[in-house]
Amino acid sequence: MIHVLTTGGTIDKIYFDANSDFEIGDSLLPELLAEANIHDGYSLRELLRKDSLEMTDEDREMIAAAVSQTSANRVLITHGTDTMAETAQALKSIAGKTIVLFGAMQPARMRRSDAVFNLGFAWAAVSLLPEGVYIAMNGEVFEAGAVRKNLKAKRFERA
Amino acid sequence: MIHVLTTGGTIDKIYFDANSDFEIGDSLLPELLAEANIHDGYSLRELLRKDSLEMTDEDREMIAAAVSQTSANRVLITHGTDTMAETAQALKSIAGKTIVLFGAMQPARMRRSDAVFNLGFAWAAVSLLPEGVYIAMNGEVFEAGAVRKNLKAKRFERA
Amino acid sequence: MIHVLTTGGTIDKIYFDANSDFEIGDSLLPELLAEANIHDGYSLRELLRKDSLEMTDEDREMIAAAVSQTSANRVLITHGTDTMAETAQALKSIAGKTIVLFGAMQPARMRRSDAVFNLGFAWAAVSLLPEGVYIAMNGEVFEAGAVRKNLKAKRFERA
Amino acid sequence: MIHVLTTGGTIDKIYFDANSDFEIGDSLLPELLAEANIHDGYSLRELLRKDSLEMTDEDREMIAAAVSQTSANRVLITHGTDTMAETAQALKSIAGKTIVLFGAMQPARMRRSDAVFNLGFAWAAVSLLPEGVYIAMNGEVFEAGAVRKNLKAKRFERA
Repeated sequence: MIHVLTTGGTIDKIYFDANSDFEIGDSLLPELLAEANIHDGYSLRELLRKDSLEMTDEDREMIAAAVSQTSANRVLITHGTDTMAETAQALKSIAGKTIVLFGAMQPARMRRSDAVFNLGFAWAAVSLLPEGVYIAMNGEVFEAGAVRKNLKAKRFERA
Repeated sequence: MIHVLTTGGTIDKIYFDANSDFEIGDSLLPELLAEANIHDGYSLRELLRKDSLEMTDEDREMIAAAVSQTSANRVLITHGTDTMAETAQALKSIAGKTIVLFGAMQPARMRRSDAVFNLGFAWAAVSLLPEGVYIAMNGEVFEAGAVRKNLKAKRFERA
Repeated sequence: MIHVLTTGGTIDKIYFDANSDFEIGDSLLPELLAEANIHDGYSLRELLRKDSLEMTDEDREMIAAAVSQTSANRVLITHGTDTMAETAQALKSIAGKTIVLFGAMQPARMRRSDAVFNLGFAWAAVSLLPEGVYIAMNGEVFEAGAVRKNLKAKRFERA
Repeated sequence: MIHVLTTGGTIDKIYFDANSDFEIGDSLLPELLAEANIHDGYSLRELLRKDSLEMTDEDREMIAAAVSQTSANRVLITHGTDTMAETAQALKSIAGKTIVLFGAMQPARMRRSDAVFNLGFAWAAVSLLPEGVYIAMNGEVFEAGAVRKNLKAKRFERA
């Protein structure tokens, strides 16, 4: 059983014409998983709807608490990419679980996006990796504490 | 020959992860027209990349000048929806041409958008309507000076 | 009020893995119209699910009867492209209505398709054209009896 | 380095209006990988364009030869789903490589498809799994020789 926690980020952004702006909407993950023929074997909980630049230490504690609370030992977390590495670091102390954070550079609701590939990649990663905390982005797996987002290259890399 | 002028608006917004924001990008119209098997019979000129809340009287004069300059007597204009009615009004004095303004409530680059339907609808409208200035939105044709955007209902209606 | 009759064709084809094949599915038109913010002002009736190469004279009589029966004087018909010109010809005798046939070269369910543009284009055509029978394809309006599908160029043209 | 071999199947089917039919086209994988920000770290070779019901023993020998020839020790194979289990079985004798077969129930070119999720899932699987031959479908990893396609349920399961 995979437990999915959604915290926001680009992946679930929606365009709101009224504000000429975007906001984080309902997570598209259930719909994307259904399109991939995955209808069970997971639970999903919406925790936050935050752009990760706005994540606070309290938010990270809330995420850590939610990870610890679930009986599932495989946990997938959607998260904004800007501070994903910080949140991963904050979860390193949790033992006995495989925890994978992922997100996207383009909203899942765009015609062209990395969101669905990243979801599939992360789904396999959380199913196959041993206990620990990881980031799964741009087709690679990184260990928490040894990863950073390269803003210029717009990708994650080993740190 | 249809002359297309792009001025910006939601229809051509792109998501920029670097800014956690949507900005107006290259117009997607040539790509959308190609997908519809339309490869010639039109010319396209990018005039502005403005959210229509930021349109000024000078911008509207620039648009009017561009409309007057083209030898084509059928002119299609992409425009943000918020002040489309004002720009339509400002073009009413131009004689001898069929001028149709349209845009979209969701960017053309989204998986679900009104953009492509609106483009097709406006393409027929500019081909069939007699001289005058019109707005073509939510599947209806409105005459300039007698139309407004109903913000709450998120649609255009007769005024 | 626009009355929409769906008769099949490429536009509504679905891929069926079980048959390694395609079949005509439920019409996607209501969903596409909703995405374009069109929720009323029309009625829709599924008449047939035929590839137009398989249309018979009896099918064409059925379509003509359905057109005559509706009280709406603006009728849109989805139809396979291969024999759309024949069906248009068969409807020429119906007076007092604006009848527009359209379809698509690629199913509406494909990522890249002419279907949505064609729907928007035809929606405006049926709203603006005077009484008569027309085909609206590849961004042009053709009169029934003076149009054919150019198989090599994959587009409709004046005959 | 991941070596990708494409052999056909539903995943790369294109709709051909001329034949009123779906045929296997150029593989969409390079475009999908680019959308996922993956531009290097892999090589791709188009081997076949076959619906897997038409795969022969000679085809399977060709695939096995191509797998053995590559210096890469991580090989991803796109394949039709109907006989994917047979081909996986035929590759079991190849030692020293992680070989993952995957495909899709809906063409990657459809608006709604499992193709992109499956690609991401398989990309992680081939990166993380130990030597051996596997099928990665519907969000699960199966070992060759212990898997079959459940036609009725339209999914792969342990055999």
